[in-house]
Amino acid sequence: MPLLVMKFGGTSVANLDRIRRAAKRVGVEVAKGYDVIVIVSAMSGKTNELVGWVNETSPLYDAREYDAVVSSGEIVTAGLMALTLQEMDVPARSWQGWQVPLRTNSAHSQARIEEIGTEAINAKFGEGMRVAVVAGFQGISPEGRVTTLGRGGSDTTAVAFAAAFGAERCDIYTDVDGVYTTDPRICDKARKLDKIAYEEMLELASLGAKVLQTRSVELAMRYKVKLRVLSSFEEQSDEAGTLVCDEEEIMESNVVNGVAYSRDEAKLTCLSVADRPGIAATIFTCLSDAGVNVDMIVQNISEDGRTDMTFSCPTDQVKRAEVALNGCKDKGDLNFGELVADTGVAKVSVVGIGMRSQSGVAAKMFRVLSDEGVNIKVITTSEIKISVLIDRKYMELAVQALHDAFELDKAS
Amino acid sequence: MPLLVMKFGGTSVANLDRIRRAAKRVGVEVAKGYDVIVIVSAMSGKTNELVGWVNETSPLYDAREYDAVVSSGEIVTAGLMALTLQEMDVPARSWQGWQVPLRTNSAHSQARIEEIGTEAINAKFGEGMRVAVVAGFQGISPEGRVTTLGRGGSDTTAVAFAAAFGAERCDIYTDVDGVYTTDPRICDKARKLDKIAYEEMLELASLGAKVLQTRSVELAMRYKVKLRVLSSFEEQSDEAGTLVCDEEEIMESNVVNGVAYSRDEAKLTCLSVADRPGIAATIFTCLSDAGVNVDMIVQNISEDGRTDMTFSCPTDQVKRAEVALNGCKDKGDLNFGELVADTGVAKVSVVGIGMRSQSGVAAKMFRVLSDEGVNIKVITTSEIKISVLIDRKYMELAVQALHDAFELDKAS
Repeated sequence: MPLLVMKFGGTSVANLDRIRRAAKRVGVEVAKGYDVIVIVSAMSGKTNELVGWVNETSPLYDAREYDAVVSSGEIVTAGLMALTLQEMDVPARSWQGWQVPLRTNSAHSQARIEEIGTEAINAKFGEGMRVAVVAGFQGISPEGRVTTLGRGGSDTTAVAFAAAFGAERCDIYTDVDGVYTTDPRICDKARKLDKIAYEEMLELASLGAKVLQTRSVELAMRYKVKLRVLSSFEEQSDEAGTLVCDEEEIMESNVVNGVAYSRDEAKLTCLSVADRPGIAATIFTCLSDAGVNVDMIVQNISEDGRTDMTFSCPTDQVKRAEVALNGCKDKGDLNFGELVADTGVAKVSVVGIGMRSQSGVAAKMFRVLSDEGVNIKVITTSEIKISVLIDRKYMELAVQALHDAFELDKAS
Repeated sequence: MPLLVMKFGGTSVANLDRIRRAAKRVGVEVAKGYDVIVIVSAMSGKTNELVGWVNETSPLYDAREYDAVVSSGEIVTAGLMALTLQEMDVPARSWQGWQVPLRTNSAHSQARIEEIGTEAINAKFGEGMRVAVVAGFQGISPEGRVTTLGRGGSDTTAVAFAAAFGAERCDIYTDVDGVYTTDPRICDKARKLDKIAYEEMLELASLGAKVLQTRSVELAMRYKVKLRVLSSFEEQSDEAGTLVCDEEEIMESNVVNGVAYSRDEAKLTCLSVADRPGIAATIFTCLSDAGVNVDMIVQNISEDGRTDMTFSCPTDQVKRAEVALNGCKDKGDLNFGELVADTGVAKVSVVGIGMRSQSGVAAKMFRVLSDEGVNIKVITTSEIKISVLIDRKYMELAVQALHDAFELDKAS
């Protein structure tokens, strides 16, 4: 029988009523003839409660015990979902990570999936079971201990199951009804996309569009798992939501498919750095050792043997970056004139696989911003993305103007 | 190193503060040189919440899913207890039932322990771990699914671990400070016993003294596990609580060691039953099939080939018993004149291993009740127990009078 993976996040299983609603969606697919693997998160709020207890008990906790405690929420939802399906006369049973087994490495609290055993679940499908309900976010280490995959790990679990079982599709049910051209809260012309390429979704996910966890998109891309994002709160047709798929399956595409933003960015500049080999390595090793997540990096042209080095990082890491760089300066590893921080900036990006074959996107983007009087402070580009740092007060204006200019409100 | 098993019930681990207090008790034993296996229940209220969700989801639930859901509470406490001990620099780790493994049969929701693997935990003790924290109440079936042992199963878990690991003692920490000669809420002269024999504890447990689960006492008796009941809310000396042990370890003992009662009893009488072979079997098969828990049974002498058959059962099963017996009567299996129910009775019992060697206990009991004007409705006896059914309104009076008469307020 064809197989489907369906994943329900915390808000979709927040209480018994919602679990029932989710189970009905599963029932619809079973009635169509699918065998289904359902991946569930913990009821919303439960994982935070458990994490809170662990932190209060032991601030520098043993991650193995953290995992044992925190993974218990998904076990509860899995059992309740199986019972709900049974009440609807759908043959179902629940599986904990170690029962599947979903084998991971030993990196507790952020373990990586190594292998999913398909034998036990397939045997049960062979005996007439129609739905395997699997507790998401958890696995078992080589030492036989419970591991968790880190925040959002249930998305990753779902994609990994879809790959391991050769599922026709992996449906991610969440509290939004798909992936949008931009954030509808900022731009009322934002349009839901019917399809989006893995690469684009990856850029959007890493830019903070919180629909899917980055790792799950990476995994889907690697194993060519068709991923559909859709709402668990609306009646669904077969065409609902957004399909994340290979670009070859998208016949026509706009040059730009999305405008993303990130509000909490800061820009730091080391003024008058000696322009000699190894200086960049010194700066960014120093920042990396201090745990600063550097995003964009720009080096200006040199003048009199000295240059300026600019980079961006999250606003709440500015202090840490300053301490680290001044520390390196004091130790003599590094010599710069002054360190200037600007915490009033935001990042705006346009994303689209069409950029690879079409030129002029950057020029158009800069023209649009210039026409609106928005000054660009830093620019970086990738194959399918152009990002700029601008004053935060212009962020919404910039998003709306770019959305209009690239006609994202119109389907291609 | 000598080994101790310590079990903490739901109220003893109800929140993080109480878990810390319990961990301190464990730390004291570790400091004395013991390796310790700690058995924990779920935080009080958690199991009821989970059971409630299961019942609401599926009134006739699949017990395998029930077990998966309901066993999650103990997992949380075990992890938090291990973390708390680690914070106190006590090397500790948590174990779930399947990790130990604690193997049970497949009777989900009331599984029986078949085997406890000692290898993995002993290996960790060998590596310097001082405390193994085990989630109580749960095990793994031959099919690899999670099982639970039924209510109070954490006591049974603790005793089984003490037997399997050859522990010096099994300490059961609870919200009372030991076993009393009778219920202190009813009789203010009630005295805490320093020691009590397994057999006596068994009779008291089955009579509703809710200190220990009957199964755990049976198991302790079979494997000669020294069991100590003590409070987790008081500072403890080595002599605290009550030791449940072999009678040979109790040098001197009163003839009667406890007065127990059970409030919710009902008395039913089938009047004028044909006095022929097989009639008792018919009646009690009929009741057993209907799920009625019959306790005392008395058959009066026969008159004109007919007799009266009296039995007791919990008050809330009277309706069920009436429906069952009248059903059997209608089907012609059974012929009796009338069915009379008395739901206003209570059971009072005196218990003591001294009875086996000392006569006159029954006579003294009946005399005491008679002196107080209490009419006895039904009598049953065992080797170490005499029970009577009386009007419920006399119950407290009877308990107090018997406690006085047998001088239970004085240590032997």
